[in-house]
Amino acid sequence: MKQTAQILRIRLILALVTTLLVYVEGFSQKNIKVDENTQQAIFPKGKQGPAENFTGKAFNYGLLDNDSTYNTVIGNVLFEPGARSNWHKHPAGQILIITAGEGFHQIKGKPIEKMRKGDVVKCPPNVEHWHGATPDSSLHQMYIIPNTGKGIVEWLQPVTDKEYNAFK
Amino acid sequence: MKQTAQILRIRLILALVTTLLVYVEGFSQKNIKVDENTQQAIFPKGKQGPAENFTGKAFNYGLLDNDSTYNTVIGNVLFEPGARSNWHKHPAGQILIITAGEGFHQIKGKPIEKMRKGDVVKCPPNVEHWHGATPDSSLHQMYIIPNTGKGIVEWLQPVTDKEYNAFK
Repeated sequence: MKQTAQILRIRLILALVTTLLVYVEGFSQKNIKVDENTQQAIFPKGKQGPAENFTGKAFNYGLLDNDSTYNTVIGNVLFEPGARSNWHKHPAGQILIITAGEGFHQIKGKPIEKMRKGDVVKCPPNVEHWHGATPDSSLHQMYIIPNTGKGIVEWLQPVTDKEYNAFK
Repeated sequence: MKQTAQILRIRLILALVTTLLVYVEGFSQKNIKVDENTQQAIFPKGKQGPAENFTGKAFNYGLLDNDSTYNTVIGNVLFEPGARSNWHKHPAGQILIITAGEGFHQIKGKPIEKMRKGDVVKCPPNVEHWHGATPDSSLHQMYIIPNTGKGIVEWLQPVTDKEYNAFK
């Protein structure tokens, strides 16, 4: 009897320890996740883009306003998973720089291309295109529009679910 | 005697558990640290800048080469702690965007200003200036040079230790 009680006590301690370990492990992983998000967010979230130009939630934070000195517009867009811009064109083109997450980019008539952290994408002048997050990941994306004397952006029709889901 | 042996066994288990917990905690913290560095480095380190233009170690990674479509040069510089550019000028100006770490920036005749993650700094056309890391932190810094038809960069004299250490 004494031996059985002893074994039971040790088992109880081991069960408690396992629970504690699982808790500590979970807590650490949660910390890592929070840290990742903090690191990825270089800029404030900004203002939600209007529904007439975006499907889903996309937030724009301006970094450089247009002026006659730099002739350039710079900003950051945070696309939530599944969110994307409408089709649109830039008279002088646009450069995208991905700082975190994963996204899609498509030039009219070409297949959808995946964009990842560190990627640089050129959108040539007057070419119809769209960009946004993948269904499972948010996208942190800087944009640089040069030579703004030629114009900044011309918004077109939304990217349909069929077009968005065509990624292979 | 039996009871003493039992207590000793339980104490041994608790000691082992404490050791294990300390190990798990240490392992998690190590993971967080590695993760921070990975997160900050959006781009590859690139190529070390030449000693005639930089004091200390600064690594340049090109993101957009100059061409007649975008008329823009984009790149990333990783300054190690204490490293800085020479004084220099851009005929069409330059925009700095800080993605991680801390740095200094100074326009000739004005005090040194501190730059932090998320900051955007305008360097007006033809104004003598320098930028670099603080003594204690590296600096991850994107640069955007617009209107390259006017020229890209004119390198000048090094920033002396006296000039660099004048930050208050």
